[in-house]
Amino acid sequence: MSDELLHFEDFKIGQKFSFGRYEVTREEIFEFAREYDPQPHHLDEDAAKNSIMKGLGASGWHVCAMAMRMLVDGLFNKSAGAGGAGCEDARWLKPVRPGDVLRTEVEVLEKTAPRSKPDIGFVKMRWDIFNQTDLVASFISTPLFKRRKRGT
Amino acid sequence: MSDELLHFEDFKIGQKFSFGRYEVTREEIFEFAREYDPQPHHLDEDAAKNSIMKGLGASGWHVCAMAMRMLVDGLFNKSAGAGGAGCEDARWLKPVRPGDVLRTEVEVLEKTAPRSKPDIGFVKMRWDIFNQTDLVASFISTPLFKRRKRGT
Repeated sequence: MSDELLHFEDFKIGQKFSFGRYEVTREEIFEFAREYDPQPHHLDEDAAKNSIMKGLGASGWHVCAMAMRMLVDGLFNKSAGAGGAGCEDARWLKPVRPGDVLRTEVEVLEKTAPRSKPDIGFVKMRWDIFNQTDLVASFISTPLFKRRKRGT
Repeated sequence: MSDELLHFEDFKIGQKFSFGRYEVTREEIFEFAREYDPQPHHLDEDAAKNSIMKGLGASGWHVCAMAMRMLVDGLFNKSAGAGGAGCEDARWLKPVRPGDVLRTEVEVLEKTAPRSKPDIGFVKMRWDIFNQTDLVASFISTPLFKRRKRGT
């Protein structure tokens, strides 16, 4: 494993990163919705106008997936990452529309180096997903990273 | 809005539903991963063998998206649904492999009819996603449904 990759020790509590930009197209909103979330407000302009979204918007799961893509490109594929086990408290705050350009800002909240797993550590992070003007979604995840030095 | 659709009043605390089956293919795991989670353990058999997944497995976000598809087909598109605002405590417990057949079991945990929103109510649900033999993922969500009778 290359030393140039980010390891558990390289993350600092309070550290912030910004990833993106990710341009959201109508075609991609439709494509994801047809496959995974075929509700009218993600697939039909007129139905969407009369929905809680007040216009066509991406599936919330699609928003999380786009954020993931930004972090894989910008962080995880440059890290000695070891996977993730879940996500807490995902909030879909505002609709994500065709033409929006997203970015994801991440802050390191906590680090845990368990005694039972001396090769890895957990890095708890808050993900805030913005469009041009507003926070549109957020969640917390705790991915695993390999340690440079084996813990005791 | 047709009365045949499920409304807020039709859900009972403790009620259980089962949705699926959903056949997971290698091609679909690759397709989702190329678009949204291009980490080696979702895209490369050899890299996956040496990862925490010990073999090729679907992105956790893909697992959530497949569960969503099962619920849209089986529940939300048969309901007077009004959207959702997030997801709590998603856990990716076991790898989802090519050839797995998934189902999603849902239990109604709580119902909330807010005074401030007399047309809708919140139905908190736990989603448990199983393969042939094991629980592979779970999360909690609180979708909105329209009320048959306007609350006071």
